[in-house]
Amino acid sequence: MTTVIVKESAFVDDVRTRMVRKAALSLAARGLQRTSFSEVLKASGGPRGSLYHHFPGGKDELVLGALDVAGNFALQSLGALAGRPATEIAQAFIDLWRAVLSGSNFRSGCAIAAVAVAAESPELVDRAATVFRAWVAEIGALLAAGGVAGDRAPSLAALLVSACEGAVIVSRAQRSFAPLDLVGAELVAAVAAAQGEGRAS
Amino acid sequence: MTTVIVKESAFVDDVRTRMVRKAALSLAARGLQRTSFSEVLKASGGPRGSLYHHFPGGKDELVLGALDVAGNFALQSLGALAGRPATEIAQAFIDLWRAVLSGSNFRSGCAIAAVAVAAESPELVDRAATVFRAWVAEIGALLAAGGVAGDRAPSLAALLVSACEGAVIVSRAQRSFAPLDLVGAELVAAVAAAQGEGRAS
Repeated sequence: MTTVIVKESAFVDDVRTRMVRKAALSLAARGLQRTSFSEVLKASGGPRGSLYHHFPGGKDELVLGALDVAGNFALQSLGALAGRPATEIAQAFIDLWRAVLSGSNFRSGCAIAAVAVAAESPELVDRAATVFRAWVAEIGALLAAGGVAGDRAPSLAALLVSACEGAVIVSRAQRSFAPLDLVGAELVAAVAAAQGEGRAS
Repeated sequence: MTTVIVKESAFVDDVRTRMVRKAALSLAARGLQRTSFSEVLKASGGPRGSLYHHFPGGKDELVLGALDVAGNFALQSLGALAGRPATEIAQAFIDLWRAVLSGSNFRSGCAIAAVAVAAESPELVDRAATVFRAWVAEIGALLAAGGVAGDRAPSLAALLVSACEGAVIVSRAQRSFAPLDLVGAELVAAVAAAQGEGRAS
């Protein structure tokens, strides 16, 4: 009996997890309004009727879950780089976005930005804001640990996040890596200069 | 008779112009899918039935016009700064976005980005890409004229556009000028450093 309960809850979690991941991908590629609750369910292979079982709050709850998943994916990727030089941290964040563009043939961007520019619900906008805040805090800590002076790390982290967000939008629209690569080179140079200063002081 | 014709055509142009401007504002505030053809008409005070007279291509044609208007607004604002030092150009572009946030109480962002992340039509995405390209080219030329070395100006211009686009999204979501101000200070410092190098060389 215990086994059955464990299996059932594992299955339930799995459908919910798959739906949230599919929703994150759909938001990144199609934006908020074109992300369809029922298409996400279909793509996740979940049984009909499981929508409101897993997401009693409706589409907004699914989107909140997707924002968390997308936010945590970047945080986990970055977390693996703790202790590396600041320039490597910067390059890794840029490469993460380059992979989003190349993996989707320029059809996808950032799920968080897509929600932030199109959401009506203050709860969705707030969650997007929370993800941006978490990214900047994590990158700031990693840059400081990686040789950037502690008082400079927060603003360089804010620049990294904003510039990558913008460059992904521009590169995606132009279907070219050139904007992200140009911006990325400027960002790594800025971090390298600050890293040198951080070590010298 | 001539007078009447002139007046009629002036009126017709005026309704179309008002609609395109209202559409640009709506895209910046509500995103692409929540921008409604009929609400834009209502807000513009145009007579019913004038929608397909002015925009036989439907909503997409209205959005294309709005992208042009928003794109040209920034270009004209920048054009007035020709011959000024590069740091002033950078600050003016940042201030333009700060005004969008403050004028809307953080309810608006960039119409071009809103379309780029949510459009299904390749024509709309291409037009967004064209606007980004025009902004980077204009800012690059202004930075070069303002003291930045010619080979550095294009990448600094790309950084300015991308970082402001991203910072506007983050600041708007967080309902705070802090992200844009932090990023803006980094951008002006980067341009100031390059301006010094440009003059020294």
